[in-house]
Amino acid sequence: MISFARGAPAPECLAVELLADCAKGAIERDGTSVLSYGTGLGYAPLREWLGERYSIDPGQILLTNGSLQGFVYLAQQFFWSGVGGRVLVEAPSYDRPLLILRNHGVEVSTVAMDDEGLDPEALERELKRGPKPAFLYTIPTFQNPSGRTLSVERRKRIVELAHEYDLLVLEDDPYGFVRYEGTAPPTMFEIEGSIAGQIAHTSSFSKTISPGLRVGYLILPKPLLKPLELIASSTTISPSNLPAATVYEFARRGHFEPNLERMNNLLRTRRDAMLTALERHFGDSASWSRPEGGYFNWLNLPEGIDAGELLTRATEAGVSYCKGTDFYPDGRGAGSLRLAYSFPSPEEIERGIAILAELARDMKS
Amino acid sequence: MISFARGAPAPECLAVELLADCAKGAIERDGTSVLSYGTGLGYAPLREWLGERYSIDPGQILLTNGSLQGFVYLAQQFFWSGVGGRVLVEAPSYDRPLLILRNHGVEVSTVAMDDEGLDPEALERELKRGPKPAFLYTIPTFQNPSGRTLSVERRKRIVELAHEYDLLVLEDDPYGFVRYEGTAPPTMFEIEGSIAGQIAHTSSFSKTISPGLRVGYLILPKPLLKPLELIASSTTISPSNLPAATVYEFARRGHFEPNLERMNNLLRTRRDAMLTALERHFGDSASWSRPEGGYFNWLNLPEGIDAGELLTRATEAGVSYCKGTDFYPDGRGAGSLRLAYSFPSPEEIERGIAILAELARDMKS
Repeated sequence: MISFARGAPAPECLAVELLADCAKGAIERDGTSVLSYGTGLGYAPLREWLGERYSIDPGQILLTNGSLQGFVYLAQQFFWSGVGGRVLVEAPSYDRPLLILRNHGVEVSTVAMDDEGLDPEALERELKRGPKPAFLYTIPTFQNPSGRTLSVERRKRIVELAHEYDLLVLEDDPYGFVRYEGTAPPTMFEIEGSIAGQIAHTSSFSKTISPGLRVGYLILPKPLLKPLELIASSTTISPSNLPAATVYEFARRGHFEPNLERMNNLLRTRRDAMLTALERHFGDSASWSRPEGGYFNWLNLPEGIDAGELLTRATEAGVSYCKGTDFYPDGRGAGSLRLAYSFPSPEEIERGIAILAELARDMKS
Repeated sequence: MISFARGAPAPECLAVELLADCAKGAIERDGTSVLSYGTGLGYAPLREWLGERYSIDPGQILLTNGSLQGFVYLAQQFFWSGVGGRVLVEAPSYDRPLLILRNHGVEVSTVAMDDEGLDPEALERELKRGPKPAFLYTIPTFQNPSGRTLSVERRKRIVELAHEYDLLVLEDDPYGFVRYEGTAPPTMFEIEGSIAGQIAHTSSFSKTISPGLRVGYLILPKPLLKPLELIASSTTISPSNLPAATVYEFARRGHFEPNLERMNNLLRTRRDAMLTALERHFGDSASWSRPEGGYFNWLNLPEGIDAGELLTRATEAGVSYCKGTDFYPDGRGAGSLRLAYSFPSPEEIERGIAILAELARDMKS
């Protein structure tokens, strides 16, 4: 099976030996803290390291079991006990948050995006239409699923709109450091540059060190910190210290940047293989995004081909992906699909895309 | 500060060196799995080890970030989106679940207990009264907060009632292995002995290895497994593999039983110091439980003394505990308090109880 379905790093990306040493080192260095209950905010030394990196008070940082759990806590804060309400999402968007919102009985309103990411004009129309949403959920850099990156101008405009309309923005940024070329735009959290602001920022070490460690973090405007810490401690007492202490040890020993460069080189090769294969096998018959980083690109199939139908045939032929409709709350996306190039080898990418293109040609004729 | 407040093990209980080696060994042995995304159920080798230990299908076991998270998942299964409903709890009961149920807007009905634990007759009256509860939450062995243990006869009767009234029972058993003397009664899960039954069982390694690892587990009747796995994967994708793999490595290397014996010896000394100090300083003026294991005993103060008022004075004098009212949903427990003897040293226990008894005498006169 060649999997373009899961946004997971290839096994060779994982620094097994270094992490084994760091896990041991973390317990040896700070065993009593690591092995005892902590606070709901999570392992303090990692929060302090993050605080320095982001130039913020570590007291604004909540560690989570992956960044998705941060999203769940935020959803609980607004929608616990079935209070109801509305959340804005870009369309398409990451499927798991859409599912979580549906489970909470929340109204999900979509905001259009194009190649430059979320459209601020569409956002303002949606804000004017009302009712006031609890928050906007957006992945501005190397978006899941589209691979698109929000332009700097639009980031600035969205921060303005957030202040103008008292809109809380949850900026989910797991891929920001997974950049193969080009210059990183500032995050909206950086653009805002305020402590008690409108932009909450979430990320994790899943794409920069290891997903199995499940170390995510939420950087919150001060008024949200206490209530979310209470939700966190009422769910897990504290997040597990060992994964966080292992990440901290990894960073403390200076492995973070060199390892990220190594991972990004491995991933760049895969992104390149994906773009080359798409060009070779789909040519002018389809269109796709060309991300400068991250794990995904988004393929718009040749006119009239249904991504769900193609998936059935592809699975039989040993290739998987996620169909576009998974990433819309409203059934759109039938002609599109998400290709994760992070896991398969460059050779598998070439072979998998060749198979998809051939199946698509068969369906067309 | 002498803390009788937190149910945490003393630092000397933690096998720092062994766990450091096991964390390293776990990543070295199975790095790709440990460092990659897993399933919502959690790290498979630990689930298989638990399956053998409990003589059940590992497919019935869901690993959680501490057993409290398992409770949260169960509460979400029944009460997500503010569906409402009712849960039965013994009174007194562990305060965190009470808080979680309150946050979900759930009606909490209490069932009386005495020195033999939850009273089955009171349970049946409550079941007859209706409406049908979503589940009964109970800690049958070395209960938090009372230290009491449910008798074997009552366990059998509660299993019968569960079948008679189609009642789901969540048997929370974190302290079952923390036994200093006497014979362990069978769990209700063992008494039922059925796969698709009425008894769900939850526990963790917090009291037997380390709380900071946050490795808990839920053993579920089959019909609940799939929905709870979906909730789990929609919250964290998968629980962190590293703590679970470290626990598995610890068990695989044969450390679990000898380490538990070592921990229990350290805790027995503390329990003994607590009982001796209570006898010496309170004598006939108060009454308390005499648990054969676990972390807690429950002190009924001399007539007329309010545990909240005493706590204010005790805190000033450098002694803390949890007041009885924290463990009732309805304001009862004003004359009682929970003493955790797991954390302070035997000398601190003697000194702390002497201070409490003196303060109580002052309040009386």
